[in-house]
Amino acid sequence: MSSAVERTYDVVVLGAGSTGENLADIAVRGGLTAVLVESELVGGECSYWACMPSKALLRGTEALVEARAVDGAAQAVTGEQDVDATLARRNRFTSNWDDSGQVTWVDGAGIHLIRGTGRLAGERTVVVDTGAGEVRLTARHAVAVCTGSEAAVPPVDGLDAIDAWTPREATSAKEAPARLLILGGGYVGCEMATAWQALGSQVTLFQRGERLLDGLEPAAGEAVAASLRARGVEVRLGCEITAARRDGEGVVATTSHGDLRGDELLVAVGRRARTSDIGVDTVGLEPGEYLEVDDTMQVDGIPWLYAAGDVNGRRQLTHMGKYQARQAGAAIVARARGEEVSTADWSPFVATADHAATPSVVFTSPQIASVGRTVAEAEEAGLPHRVVEYPIGDVAGASLFADGYTGTAIAVVDTEREVLLGMTFIGPAVAELLQAATIAVVGEVPISRLWHAVPAYPTVNEIWLRLLETYRG
Amino acid sequence: MSSAVERTYDVVVLGAGSTGENLADIAVRGGLTAVLVESELVGGECSYWACMPSKALLRGTEALVEARAVDGAAQAVTGEQDVDATLARRNRFTSNWDDSGQVTWVDGAGIHLIRGTGRLAGERTVVVDTGAGEVRLTARHAVAVCTGSEAAVPPVDGLDAIDAWTPREATSAKEAPARLLILGGGYVGCEMATAWQALGSQVTLFQRGERLLDGLEPAAGEAVAASLRARGVEVRLGCEITAARRDGEGVVATTSHGDLRGDELLVAVGRRARTSDIGVDTVGLEPGEYLEVDDTMQVDGIPWLYAAGDVNGRRQLTHMGKYQARQAGAAIVARARGEEVSTADWSPFVATADHAATPSVVFTSPQIASVGRTVAEAEEAGLPHRVVEYPIGDVAGASLFADGYTGTAIAVVDTEREVLLGMTFIGPAVAELLQAATIAVVGEVPISRLWHAVPAYPTVNEIWLRLLETYRG
Repeated sequence: MSSAVERTYDVVVLGAGSTGENLADIAVRGGLTAVLVESELVGGECSYWACMPSKALLRGTEALVEARAVDGAAQAVTGEQDVDATLARRNRFTSNWDDSGQVTWVDGAGIHLIRGTGRLAGERTVVVDTGAGEVRLTARHAVAVCTGSEAAVPPVDGLDAIDAWTPREATSAKEAPARLLILGGGYVGCEMATAWQALGSQVTLFQRGERLLDGLEPAAGEAVAASLRARGVEVRLGCEITAARRDGEGVVATTSHGDLRGDELLVAVGRRARTSDIGVDTVGLEPGEYLEVDDTMQVDGIPWLYAAGDVNGRRQLTHMGKYQARQAGAAIVARARGEEVSTADWSPFVATADHAATPSVVFTSPQIASVGRTVAEAEEAGLPHRVVEYPIGDVAGASLFADGYTGTAIAVVDTEREVLLGMTFIGPAVAELLQAATIAVVGEVPISRLWHAVPAYPTVNEIWLRLLETYRG
Repeated sequence: MSSAVERTYDVVVLGAGSTGENLADIAVRGGLTAVLVESELVGGECSYWACMPSKALLRGTEALVEARAVDGAAQAVTGEQDVDATLARRNRFTSNWDDSGQVTWVDGAGIHLIRGTGRLAGERTVVVDTGAGEVRLTARHAVAVCTGSEAAVPPVDGLDAIDAWTPREATSAKEAPARLLILGGGYVGCEMATAWQALGSQVTLFQRGERLLDGLEPAAGEAVAASLRARGVEVRLGCEITAARRDGEGVVATTSHGDLRGDELLVAVGRRARTSDIGVDTVGLEPGEYLEVDDTMQVDGIPWLYAAGDVNGRRQLTHMGKYQARQAGAAIVARARGEEVSTADWSPFVATADHAATPSVVFTSPQIASVGRTVAEAEEAGLPHRVVEYPIGDVAGASLFADGYTGTAIAVVDTEREVLLGMTFIGPAVAELLQAATIAVVGEVPISRLWHAVPAYPTVNEIWLRLLETYRG
């Protein structure tokens, strides 16, 4: 083997998804040199196989649902959603799985890019197999692992042999399968069931658990299950898969509810860390495990090693990965300068929102938008709290938005500190309601002050007034 | 004249619009007795001739604009908006101008209602002409004037003789006039031009000033003018009316741009206080003028007299009237109990948001949502500030929401206190983005903390991250 090319950077970033890109960008803006190592497409999962394509698939359906819900406008919607045009729009949002635009951005940001498979090789060292040779990278200040996660495949007889869809295939499929089986009722399963049923598939969504969208407020999963069923999706709960096989007609899933048949089977049962083949063993860590980090994303016990995004297992959401990247990037820059890095809650160097105020939106119909603690989480944490619920459809702005608007807002209030701990909105188009709750939770704005945050009339946001009135009693 | 019926209440409220209803409700919840006096429909302007019908007229058009902006969904919108169904929906939202639902609510809230024309008659006294006699009301603790405002008619030759439309006729019209002239490019003029042009009228919007939506950020009026023109509205700025007359064909407005002809002329040039015929002279005030109040809505120099809502001229918006009613109601209850009433900013008894954080939404296309100080207002107040602008369409969530999304966010940041002073969103469907900004302004959440309020990806609210990044530079 010829000797490797050697290069030194202040910061070496493994993985050029949105997290890695942001972390490298912050480092360069802070005056450091940075290199991104990427074996697939620059831009990562979110750009090509997750957020962007899934939301592009869903948006048209949602826009039509909204128009059909307004008498007078509904009469104009006399045609059908154009599936080909919808898929073509999705393709545009993924740049047809071409990352040249992202590469241009990386270049313009002053970040170096090396394409190839990077692996840790001891302290501050990453070796990249570029296909045309090796590049040995040394990091003066930090190596940041931003390799993300990949779809987990459960140990089911035959499942690994049938070429099942992962979320990648589900978001990038070129046409709607006639019959789509979906294993797993988390947000991926629910979103993909919503999208493909609308685009022409007969979808069967099944899972072992009794509740969709587990981890969110129970009302969320109930609302989505009811809506999926109303749209023709077969939703099977308490339905355990025991084996899978392909036959001439497609895929057969053997389950506790009998055999389920489809043309494709999407497995969406969770994620696993992409750490199995990146040399974490060379620095004493366990391959395949999430990397444990502190709130600056520094890996426990290894001060030069950071892990941000899905790979640390904290909050597997694009926006939280980017947030962690901003905070970790700031910490790396400050430490490189010998500056003090406060690890106090809400400092510029820590990802406190990971614990206290993680927002998430499930783009189903109804949408589910939540931030902070659920009722169950407040209970588990032993926090003194009160739950306030209000039907969103009773707000004038919601009834104007859509005839028969049905939704619920669930607020969890800390009764000792009199601040909002969490909020869940269930209903059409609630995604954009969430930021208000996020700011209230993060800002720890007292309830007595929130009384002065008057919602404009008549908007759906008048739900805030109703919740506060209900809290006051 | 027979002797009047005499009754005594803790609180006498003149005017049963949304402000009066809320104030009476707070009083009754606080253990006081309250009576509402109303000469027209219970529920007031907002319910029958303003917010509700105008937004009902606009919503269908907006929903179709949104569906047409998504390739794939657009192909399903092959028909036209059904004008009759839209008008029928508007009628439902005004309960066909029948107030029995509101009367039921008032009754259920334990508030008395007297229909008739009420007038102040000296200290703590209101005399109501019920048509069938007089009722003399004495207030133990407070009289609250919530009579609102009415359309102002400018002193233009002939204008008072042509039966011009006020906003009442514009929101309640039973059909679209073929040609509609609108005098005044404030929010009423712009909303009604948007609504009726979409529902079949050829609208001409004209005003003396050079800028629509004066008082908001200049970019707001520019965006709305451009959009109205693109939809076929004739927008004439710097166009002064000098006379008006009816002729056989309809209405002729003589202007500095020549004669403008329409079937109807809507005059929407502002409001004036409804105080000309309510006996304010019996307590030493000037009829026809706005009632000057302190932050608890107490009329200057008359401790038993309150004025909330449009009639005090502070912030003529339904939601601010209701807010003032809540604060004034709390103050009246506390004072009746002999409790101390703090008049410090943001106390439960004062309407501080009137000065610092008044939200407003103009339901045009694009929508204009704003809160707090504009750039000009920050300058005028001599506040150290920085303006941060960002094109909303550059946010991934916005491009997913609508192809070619065009919009702007304008943030005004206090550079000394490092808090948000004001925010304006210009763009499709921005109405629901506003509450986040309202909470940030009201909560005085430091910019350094707002960094932790992570917007969910991919939503339009990611504009927050872009604004903060731009501010950081």
